[in-house]
Parts: sequence; structure tokens; C-alpha cells
Amino acid sequence: MNHWDQRAEWLRRATSLKPELKHWAVNAQAMIECEKSDTAWQKTTVRNVGLASSLSDMKFKTGSRVIVDFGETVVGRIRLKLRPEGKNDSPLRLQIIAAELPYEVDADFADFRGGLSRSWLQDEVVNIDVLPCVYDFPRRYSLRYLKIDVLAAAGEIIFDEISVIAESSEEFLPDSSLPLSLEEKRIDKVALRTLRNCMQDVFEDGPKRDRRLWLGDLRLQAKANRHSFRRFDVVERSLLLLAAATDDEGRVPACVYTEPTLRHGNDITDYSLLLSDVVLDLIEATDDIELGRQLFPLVCRQFELFRPNFAENGLLRDDVPGWTFIDWAEFNKSSALHGIYVYSLKAAVRLAEKVGLLVECESLQQEIQHKSESLRRLLYDESCKLIVSGPDREISYAGQVWPILAGIFSPDEAKEILSAVENVPEAVRPRTPYMYHHLVEAYFYAGMDDKASALINSYWGEMVRLGADTFWEVFEPGNDFLSPYKEALSNSACHAWSCTPICFFAEH
Amino acid sequence: MNHWDQRAEWLRRATSLKPELKHWAVNAQAMIECEKSDTAWQKTTVRNVGLASSLSDMKFKTGSRVIVDFGETVVGRIRLKLRPEGKNDSPLRLQIIAAELPYEVDADFADFRGGLSRSWLQDEVVNIDVLPCVYDFPRRYSLRYLKIDVLAAAGEIIFDEISVIAESSEEFLPDSSLPLSLEEKRIDKVALRTLRNCMQDVFEDGPKRDRRLWLGDLRLQAKANRHSFRRFDVVERSLLLLAAATDDEGRVPACVYTEPTLRHGNDITDYSLLLSDVVLDLIEATDDIELGRQLFPLVCRQFELFRPNFAENGLLRDDVPGWTFIDWAEFNKSSALHGIYVYSLKAAVRLAEKVGLLVECESLQQEIQHKSESLRRLLYDESCKLIVSGPDREISYAGQVWPILAGIFSPDEAKEILSAVENVPEAVRPRTPYMYHHLVEAYFYAGMDDKASALINSYWGEMVRLGADTFWEVFEPGNDFLSPYKEALSNSACHAWSCTPICFFAEH
Repeated sequence: MNHWDQRAEWLRRATSLKPELKHWAVNAQAMIECEKSDTAWQKTTVRNVGLASSLSDMKFKTGSRVIVDFGETVVGRIRLKLRPEGKNDSPLRLQIIAAELPYEVDADFADFRGGLSRSWLQDEVVNIDVLPCVYDFPRRYSLRYLKIDVLAAAGEIIFDEISVIAESSEEFLPDSSLPLSLEEKRIDKVALRTLRNCMQDVFEDGPKRDRRLWLGDLRLQAKANRHSFRRFDVVERSLLLLAAATDDEGRVPACVYTEPTLRHGNDITDYSLLLSDVVLDLIEATDDIELGRQLFPLVCRQFELFRPNFAENGLLRDDVPGWTFIDWAEFNKSSALHGIYVYSLKAAVRLAEKVGLLVECESLQQEIQHKSESLRRLLYDESCKLIVSGPDREISYAGQVWPILAGIFSPDEAKEILSAVENVPEAVRPRTPYMYHHLVEAYFYAGMDDKASALINSYWGEMVRLGADTFWEVFEPGNDFLSPYKEALSNSACHAWSCTPICFFAEH
Repeated sequence: MNHWDQRAEWLRRATSLKPELKHWAVNAQAMIECEKSDTAWQKTTVRNVGLASSLSDMKFKTGSRVIVDFGETVVGRIRLKLRPEGKNDSPLRLQIIAAELPYEVDADFADFRGGLSRSWLQDEVVNIDVLPCVYDFPRRYSLRYLKIDVLAAAGEIIFDEISVIAESSEEFLPDSSLPLSLEEKRIDKVALRTLRNCMQDVFEDGPKRDRRLWLGDLRLQAKANRHSFRRFDVVERSLLLLAAATDDEGRVPACVYTEPTLRHGNDITDYSLLLSDVVLDLIEATDDIELGRQLFPLVCRQFELFRPNFAENGLLRDDVPGWTFIDWAEFNKSSALHGIYVYSLKAAVRLAEKVGLLVECESLQQEIQHKSESLRRLLYDESCKLIVSGPDREISYAGQVWPILAGIFSPDEAKEILSAVENVPEAVRPRTPYMYHHLVEAYFYAGMDDKASALINSYWGEMVRLGADTFWEVFEPGNDFLSPYKEALSNSACHAWSCTPICFFAEH
């Protein structure tokens, strides 16, 4: 039996940790209409046209529409309490659109041309045979707004209640005792809601799409969870599900599907390497030495599998097979990946120290030394204080950030590097909150706390100013319809990897 | 307490009689395509393109379509056993159309302009989050054909099973021991399937639309049931639900809604009067004298309520309030309604005799005498052997048939009348199987058995030749798109009032 071949045992343990979800009702707050606006995010804003509490005085019929705002983005199942008025001799046919953002409410889904499946758009057509009734939609959605079109009604219809029965492994957002500014408090709350909404029976990346457990997203969620909900059971379960879906070679997947049975999803090279950091973070928080020892061989196996990608000179080959993510952008990812390798090795060493496997550390320490030196020697351009990547010596933020976070450079050097890259207009900038997170971390490492704070404010703070009450998967100020999927409707507006201001505020 | 004010008790008894439905699987038989054809009913025919058993060798993807034929019209819930092939990272979005007739499969529902709600059309759009799965559609449909359009699939989809979990209070069609011709046997079987499919937890008029318990339809269903399934519990339950929904004046409704709670539906004058015949038929079959005695005052109350519609001369006023049905056609319905009144009085007398309430009979007998004479004297034109109706002395088949069925005319006279009306081109003809049933009955009464048989063959037999495996709500040979609802798509192709060949074969 291989060291990592405890998969069945990990699955059993993960299953036993499945959390009982909490449920609570969130009622519609207001009736709204959408309006086009040049100044609003995605050119769409909402106008409040009445209190949702007056809905029960209104009558709807075939052709009627109502849009409600729940006041916050909520994950759960829509409940309609419906009462007929007058004629009531045929089924009621409704179309709904559950939307996270105003743009989704107002869009014509028939125009959808995205790269991901159209089925992620949250619309449904339902037929309700018997009225009055309480109709619970069977699927879970993530939504702040709900548009209801009455496609066919016998007579008039009254909505006595429009609510979402919210679900998550936690209901309440923890109160922060940190001395935060009002602005920071707002960002923190949005971050907490983002994390909470993604805390289902595993840590999902986004409750609208993909609704899946990803190792890279889990890493950031687990860090934020440690400073907030402290639901280490859900972290452990998520981690063990990933471990249990390890392939026969010992490669931990980047994501898993948990239904109807556990299934290995995509592989991502950088996510697999970062397994060490996820395990370290959990074991540091829980002191579960036994679990750390059990997972340590799996951690080491990720390095073994990756190691052949290094050439003799200690640099990564240009043709690392498979998918390297780093960020949703096309650029040469070698230096970033090299940084992640060292970063992950260091986490592995700390894990080994923590769980008393010191004998394993020696070769890892040597490799850290060797891979750090090779990066510094071959990719760091001392003259311009920049880390280059690939045969064309490309420059990206990610390529600076990850070697810095790997500790290959001193904080002072890091400051020089992070300052220098700002003066390279062609440097590939971060594109997602995931990469922005690592840039902020790098600023803190470099002692550039003001830069970090300014970025938190100009990035996460800007989302809040644009109306976000959960943080988005994709955000590039001024680029409203940017999407890695060729269609902004496919973007998730509540995405776990954006929740890390929780960490920044707690740690710095 | 009024005599009929036992409503709560009737409801309790009806509830206790709720039958447990039987369930069985009906698998798709064939894959089909629809084709336009000038000779086919509703210009649409189906072409067999493969066995459904080969479905599991086929792969479907976004944009794919499959249409299957279940081999017979079945009422129940659609079950799809679905398996993904290849990519499986997003929900599956399907559109289905469940159709009784080929024309429905092929129609564009966006063009629907009917008078009834569009929500009766049996189409659904569903999103299925997790694959593989067995997906049971939540609603009940009546269908022979199922069209599935794959609106969005991550990869390829395999249908390992397409079936309907059928439901009814009876599964098996009883074998007839009658000496029937092959043609009659086919008609009988289609009639039995029609009745079976409508036998849900009440006798429904049609399992596609309206799915409701109607007194007039129940009357014919109960007669056919007596010769076939003999589920008198369901008849009693249905009858008591109608009785329990009697209004405060004592008017029994023409139909009730049973969900979510019992509710009085439409009132129809002729249906209310015919209550006596429904009760009589049940009590004759079950000998439940006590139930007959209990319902007798309600039966009498219908006459009391209707009686003011008669003028001094013993004829019906022209302005009988409310809805008089008789048939789905516009014509003067006075003579038919007059006939139904006498017919129903006679059933009430037989009921009184059966349950030993002879003292009640005398005045009813006198009224039968009086109302029969007035009809004969004032509406029967001896010279042309026709019964006329209304101030314009209109002539309709219904206006001949009902006075005949009321026994106001001897069989010989009836034969003269039914022969004479054939020579009146402007006489309003029957339009629905409901009225055709009564015409056949009148032919039998008049000793015109050959006419009756010919009509059974040319009407019900013709439906079978046109492909019916359950009998239709609306059928007028040569008038394919006739609909009382301005839209043939709204017609029901499995409708209880068409099932009465069961009676003809058993009784004659």
C-alpha cells in the first residue's frame, strides 16, 4: 500500500464530518425596477419602487412581472406563498430569474453565447397545479434579486410571501472585535457574507457556479475561516474529500464533485503543490498531529510528481504539462509556478516540524535552498529589480508575487521588486481577486502596508461602493463585462476566493 | 339542519374512501419523428425511426432532440435515467413536451392563442444539477409521446431509460367476455383505457385537462365502471365529494376541485338535475340503501331549485339562468333541458322506490306526468315528427334525444323522430362524444340498433382508425382542429365522457 492510499478511510472520515446545514428565512425587502445607467456597474442599476411588505396588497395576472430585492445576496431555495384571487381553474406557469447582480436580472438569456454552459444561468419555468400553496423551488440558487414573470394564470395571483430559505453550515456572521474603520468594517462584513454563503456541506468556490470544492479556493477559505467561523470540521471534511479523490498516481485533484459520489475533477499543477499549505494551516489551527502525519506523504507526493518539470539548471521547463492556473490571464507562468513550488515546500517543512517528522525535512530544506537559488540566479534581473519568466523574459505581477511570498527575497528586495513592476506598463496585472489576494500579501511581506491598505480599498472597497454585498469572482475596475468565460452572465458574484479581506484585517 | 346539510359528514366519508393509487412503469417503445400528412388526423403522423431499446447506445448533446412513443396513452410521471459521457461539470437543461397526439408534439406552443390557459400545455423546462441520476418529473402528465430537447449539456448524455411511472386507481384493463367483433373489441379496449386513465383518486374528466371531477362526466364514467372495473368505492367517493361541496342553497356543483381543500367549482343546470341518475346508478349497483336515503333529499333539492324555471304553461322559460351545457354547441337548449328534467325526475322516482321512500314519489310522479304532457303538447310537432325548442322553434339532435331518453315518447315515436331529424339539414348536430353517447342511447331506445351500431363504428371506430388509443374529448370527423377552446392544443385526447362504448357493448 502506498502512503497516500488511505483514500477509502479519508472518504469515510469526510462523510462523517458532513455538517448539518442551518436554514433560515430571508424575506424580500423591496420591489425594484432595473434601469440602464452609464455610471452603474455593468450599466445597470436598480430603483426601489415599493416595500415588499405591500406585495400582498397587489394582484398579478398573465403577463405581469415583479422583481424583488432580498437586501443581501443569499444562498438557498426560493419559497413563494401564493394565493389566487378570482378564477382558479388551471395551473399557474411562472418564469423566474434568480440573479446576483442587477445586470443578470435585466439580461436576455436568449442572447447567451458564453464559453461555460448556459445551464448555470439561474432561470426556471415552473408549473404549479394547485393554488393556494407554498411553492418551494427544488434547486438551490445564489441570489439577491428575483424576477418573476407570470406566464399564465387563471385569474389573479397574490404573493403573500416571497422568501429564500437560506442554507449554509453557518447562519450568523461573526462580529469582528478588530479596531476597523467604518469602510473596513463594511468590507469585512461583505467578505464574511461571501465566505458564509460558500460554506455549504463543503467549501464551495461559488454557490451560483461551479458549486464545487477547489483546492486553491479552499486554501483561501480555510485561512479566512480560521479568523472567523472557525468551522475546522468543514475544512477537514473538504480537505479529506480532495485527498480521498487522489488518483492512483497520488495526484491530489484541483477539484472534486461530491454528488452523487465522489469524483476527481480537474488537475491544476499549482493547486496540487499548495496542498502542503492547506494541511499546514489546518494542523496549526487544530493541533491534530495525527491527521498531519497521515496527510504528509500525500503532500510530499505532489512534489515528487512535479519535480521532473525542473530542468538540470534548476529552472522549470517551458513545457510543464497540464493546467497551471495562477490567475485567469494568459502569460508566462514559469516564475510564478517556481515561486509556488518553493512556497509549498516551505509549508511542507513547517508541517513536518509541526507533526514531528523532522527526518523528512532535510531533503526538502535542501531543495528549498536549491530552487530558491536557481530562481534568484536565473530569473531575477538585479539591474531592474524584476523577476522575469520564460524564454522571452516576460514580466507579470504574479511572477513577482509568488517568489516573494516564497521568501526567496528579503522584504527590502520585495519592496524594490513590487515598486519596480509598477513602472513596467506591459507587466501582466492581476485579474482576479485570487491574484489580488496574493499581491496584497506580498505588499504586507514587503512592509508596504500602505500599498496593501490602498489596494484593499481600491479593489474590494470599490466592489462595495459599486453595490457588492458579496465579493465577486471577477473584478477589474472599469472593465464591467470582463469574463474568463466570454460572458459576464457566467461570472459568479459571490465567490470564495474573494473573501480574504477577513485575513488582511485579522493579520495586519 | 337542512336535509342536505350533512356536508361535513360526506366529506369525511369521501376522504376515508380515497383510493391508494396503483403505480407501474411504462417504457418508451419506439423513437419517432413527426411528419406532415394530408391524410392523417390533424395533418400530423409519426414515423418510427428506431426501437427505444437502442436509446442507451445513443449520445445526445446540446441541441439534440429525441421523441419517443410509449405505445399507448399513459397517465403518470415521467422518469429519465440519465448518464453523462465525457464532460460532466455543469447542470443539464432539458425541455420536454408531453403529448397525447402527434400534432401536439409538433406544434409551436409560442403560437398558442387558445381560450383556456396556456398552462395546460404539457411542457416543462428543467435543470438537473447532478448526473448520473434518475430524474422523476414532479408533475403528472397524460401522454403517449415525449419530446426531449437538450437545451444545455456539459458533454454527452445517454438516456438509459425513458419511462412513465403510470398511476391510476386500477392498473389492468378487464377482459371482456362479450361476443364482440374484432373491431368492437378494439373500440372496447380503447374505451377501457380511457376510463382507466381517468380513474385517479376521483373520476377525472381528463387527466391532461381539466383533471377535475365533473358530475356530468362522473355519470357516464360510473355507468361504464359498473360494466368494467366495478370500483364503486371511487364512484361513491366522487359522488360524496360533489355532495359535500353543495352550496348553502343546496345546489350540488357541476364540478369540484379537491386540492388543496374541497372547493365548489362551476354550476351547470343539467348536471345538477342528473344527480338523481348518478345516485340511482350507484345504489342499484351496491344496494347501499342507507346512502341512497341520505342523498335523496339532496336529489330532490335540485328539482326544487330548478322548478321556478318552468312557466305556467309547463314549459321552460327562455331565460333559465346560469350555464346549461347539454353539448359544446350554441343552440336553443330548452327542449333538451326539459327532457333532462323529466329524465332526472324519473331516476329520482326509481331511487325512491329502491330505497323505500315511496311516500315521496307521488308528487314526483305527478310532476313527471305534467311535464311530459306539456313537452309533448307544446314542443312536439306531430306533423313533421320533430321536437322544437324555444321561440324560434329550433331543431337540434339534443332537443330530440333527451325527451326521448326521458321516455316521453314511445320507441316507435322515437324512431319517427330520430328518422325525421336526419332530414333537417339545419338541425344542430351533436358535437362531442358526450352528446353522441346520448344519441346512441336514443337509437337503442327507439329499437334502431343498426343505427346505433353504425354510429359507434363511424364515430368511436373512426377515432380508433385515426390512431386513438384513448377516446378524445372533441371529435367531429373531418373537422380536425375543432375546439370549444379556440385551440385544438387545449383539447384533451383522453376524456372520460368518451368511454361509453363500454356501456353499449355490455347493455346491447
